[in-house]
Order: sequence, then C-alpha cells, then structure tokens
Amino acid sequence: MNDVKKPVFENVQQHRQACREGRYSGPTGGLIPDNVLCNLVVLPMSEAYDFLVYCMRNPKPCPVIEVFDAGDPISRLAAPGADMRTDLSRYAVSRYGQDQGTVTDISDLWSDESVALLMGSSLTFDHAIARAGVKPSPEVWVLNTAIPTAKSGKFEGPLIVTMRWMKAAEAIIATQLTARFAWNHGAPVHIGDPAEIGADLANPIWGKPVDAIPRDVVPVFWACGVTPQFTAKAAKPSLMITHAPAHGFVTDLKADQYCLP
Amino acid sequence: MNDVKKPVFENVQQHRQACREGRYSGPTGGLIPDNVLCNLVVLPMSEAYDFLVYCMRNPKPCPVIEVFDAGDPISRLAAPGADMRTDLSRYAVSRYGQDQGTVTDISDLWSDESVALLMGSSLTFDHAIARAGVKPSPEVWVLNTAIPTAKSGKFEGPLIVTMRWMKAAEAIIATQLTARFAWNHGAPVHIGDPAEIGADLANPIWGKPVDAIPRDVVPVFWACGVTPQFTAKAAKPSLMITHAPAHGFVTDLKADQYCLP
Repeated sequence: MNDVKKPVFENVQQHRQACREGRYSGPTGGLIPDNVLCNLVVLPMSEAYDFLVYCMRNPKPCPVIEVFDAGDPISRLAAPGADMRTDLSRYAVSRYGQDQGTVTDISDLWSDESVALLMGSSLTFDHAIARAGVKPSPEVWVLNTAIPTAKSGKFEGPLIVTMRWMKAAEAIIATQLTARFAWNHGAPVHIGDPAEIGADLANPIWGKPVDAIPRDVVPVFWACGVTPQFTAKAAKPSLMITHAPAHGFVTDLKADQYCLP
Repeated sequence: MNDVKKPVFENVQQHRQACREGRYSGPTGGLIPDNVLCNLVVLPMSEAYDFLVYCMRNPKPCPVIEVFDAGDPISRLAAPGADMRTDLSRYAVSRYGQDQGTVTDISDLWSDESVALLMGSSLTFDHAIARAGVKPSPEVWVLNTAIPTAKSGKFEGPLIVTMRWMKAAEAIIATQLTARFAWNHGAPVHIGDPAEIGADLANPIWGKPVDAIPRDVVPVFWACGVTPQFTAKAAKPSLMITHAPAHGFVTDLKADQYCLP
C-alpha cells in the first residue's frame, strides 16, 4: 500500500494512543486485522440532514455504523471514548470542494457544528477472505461507474466501487463471505465485465490503469466508501473532513461479531 | 385481530386503490402476506433530524426502509407511486403528544414540512414462521421493557417489544428464520423470563394481561416498531401521524426478497 513500515501495536488502544500523540500517521488497513475499519466523514450540521438521508437511501456504499451528536467528537458505540479529532492517523480536509491537503489532528478544525459519521470499510473483509484462502489481486482498484445513487438534496453522484480480481471459484467464496459483512459494504454489486456497470479500467480513481484483465480470473466489484466522500465533496460543503485514503479509523468492534450470522 | 371481515384483494394495487377511495379502513396484517408490511411515522421537518439519528442509533426497533423528502408523500423505493396521504387504511394522529383519534386520509394534515418514514414491521415475519410450521400464541403482546434505547436530542425512551410464545423447538426455528428479516426487527432480543428485561405481563401496552405463562412454552421477544412511535410521541411534536395500530402500510417489496440470504 505504502512504504511506511507497519509498527506492531499490541492492541487498538495502543494504536490510538500513538495516533493521538502524533507517533503514528501511516495507513491502517490490516493493522488491527480483527477489528472493523471505518471511513470517517465530518460535515457541518447544516449539511448533515441531507447527507444522513443520502446514506439511508444508499446503504450499500454508505453503511453508517455511528452518528455523533453535533459538536461531540467522542465515540459511544464503535469505540467508546475514542476522539475523532485525534485518534485517526491522518485526515483529508477540503473546503467548498477544494482539497486542502492532509493533517494528523483536526482539533483546530472541530467546532460545535461538526457532525461525524463512521461507516464500515471494505478493507475490513479482506482479512476474512484471506483467512478463507481466497487470493485476490494484490491491488485494490477504486473505479467510477455509470450506476447512479439515490439522491438527497444536493447530494448525488455515481456509485463508486472497489475492484479485486480472483479465480471464479474464489469469487463464489468471496461473495458468500462478504455478504455477512453488511456494515462493510456486504456482497458484491457486480461480477464480470466492467463495461456492464460503466467502469473504465483505463481511468481508475485509485490504482494503476489496467490494459486487460488476465484470462483466468474474474473481476469482482464491491460498493465503496469513496462514494459518499465524492458525493459530499461535489456538494461543496464549507468544510469537509474525512480519513485520508487508506487511513481509516480502527474501531473496537470485532469484524466477526459485528456481522450477519 | 379484529372483527372486520378480511376482503380478498387480488394484489397490493387493488388494496391501495380501496384505501385511497375510502372503501377499506381495516387492519392489514396478513392481508397481502408475501409483501413487507411497514410502520409509518410522519413528523414535522423540525423534528426529523434528531428522529432520523434516533432510528440510526436503534436499528433493531427502528429499521428504516424509506425516508421521504420533506413535503413529498410519494414513495420511490418501497412502493413506487404510492401516496402516504391516502394509501394506508387508517392513521393515528397526535398533537403535542395528545391523541387526536384516527382518520382514513391525511391529505388535509399534510404540508411541505411533513417528513415520512417507513420502517419494517414484525407482522411481516409472522407469515414466514407460520409457513415453517411454527405455531406461536394466537395473541401478540406489546410490552414495555427496562432496556433503554440510545437517545438522540429529545428522543429517548425504553425499548418496546412484541411477545409471542411457542414451544422451545419452535423458538429455535423462529430465531433463525426471523434473523433473516433484518428490516422487520430481525432476530429476537430476548427469550425466556420476561422479568429479565423488565417486561410486566400484568400491564401490557397491547393485549390481555397475562397471569402465568403456560408450562410447555417459552416467551420470545422481538424489538417492536411501537418503540419509535412512543419515543416520538413523548417528545411532544406539534403534529405526529402514524399508521393506526395493526393498520400498517403494505409495500411492493416481497418479504422473501427484501431480507438477508
């Protein structure tokens, strides 16, 4: 993912402490592999209602796990006591839809009007499918599609997906397994021809352009948490803060517990 | 449930037409048994944000299936084209927490500020457990508990449950089956001693007081859609409209499709 050497944290509290003290600012995928990894979105209260309705109308890309009270940065459900201002390793900031770069602490950007949401990330289930012996492409691509999401107020845009490819037999296993992780985007939204959902492999949002899919694998597409981030950014809120790509929030929730039977 | 003779509607459109024209005002449980039955809550826009967050924090009693735009009474998802002002058989109206009786049409109460929500009802899964040979108590009780829900703004209150009793072997079947119907309250919240969750059988919200539970059965408790109704009413909104008890909205969604695998 990145050339930062992964430190070994004994537990999630130790990891969060390191984030809080500025000692860790690296990626978090697979860092505490048993725990649910979340995408963070922070918006001003004035945008929060329409955005919440957007999430409720699009639960596959926007599986909300926790909604915080306006102005309250402290988790009650996903990681009781954790502080959304300091306990992520890196944040991305935008104003009126314009990128403002990344930071490792958002205390000075937080206000009484800040509303935080945590949504499950598909990086959570990578560990589960690996444990089942599935070996997807080492790369995870993020791609735009021609599938519209259900709009709410000014929040609208296409569904964005992650793509992993694997052998057909593995795609069947991965489909069944990920269906259980409903708060981490659940079952795939598509298997097979990218063109059928309007995904252009030559122009990924994230990942290297792909010339041709290898013959012995099938691409598998999951709804992606980048969808609400792009949708929210396109709505040009005065301030939006998210986790930086690949720097999601590690919750206390165990992925094998916070899932369907 | 009630002494109104159930008419036979060939399909849900015919049923809705009858509601719209004032020709049907009876209960709807089991009327179109394959379709998801929903609880309706209509609140003023000023209350909607805190109430949505309440629902998101309490998905078991408040499994939101559709959120309508403010002022828009027409369904897009659960029953495209259906009109929430006319297409239920009977509505309950309250103002500032005070009951105003029931009506069969809310067109004159609807405004640009009205926000409708549809949430799945447990009456949906009664058909599924019957089909599996489970024979619960003919009566369904609605009971208060000592379990608090997660609050949001002024919306707070105890979890309210439905109780059905059945043989132990049936309780195991019903638990597995209802777990699939996640948008209709899902798996039970408790099995066994009512006292353990603070449920008082001598004082049900709905149903006849119970002296003693028969020896050969076990009571099974599911989160109930009356929870958000009581919570919302306790918050004393200037106007609240819900379906009248047992007069839920029949959607187009097939229960065996709109469920988990």
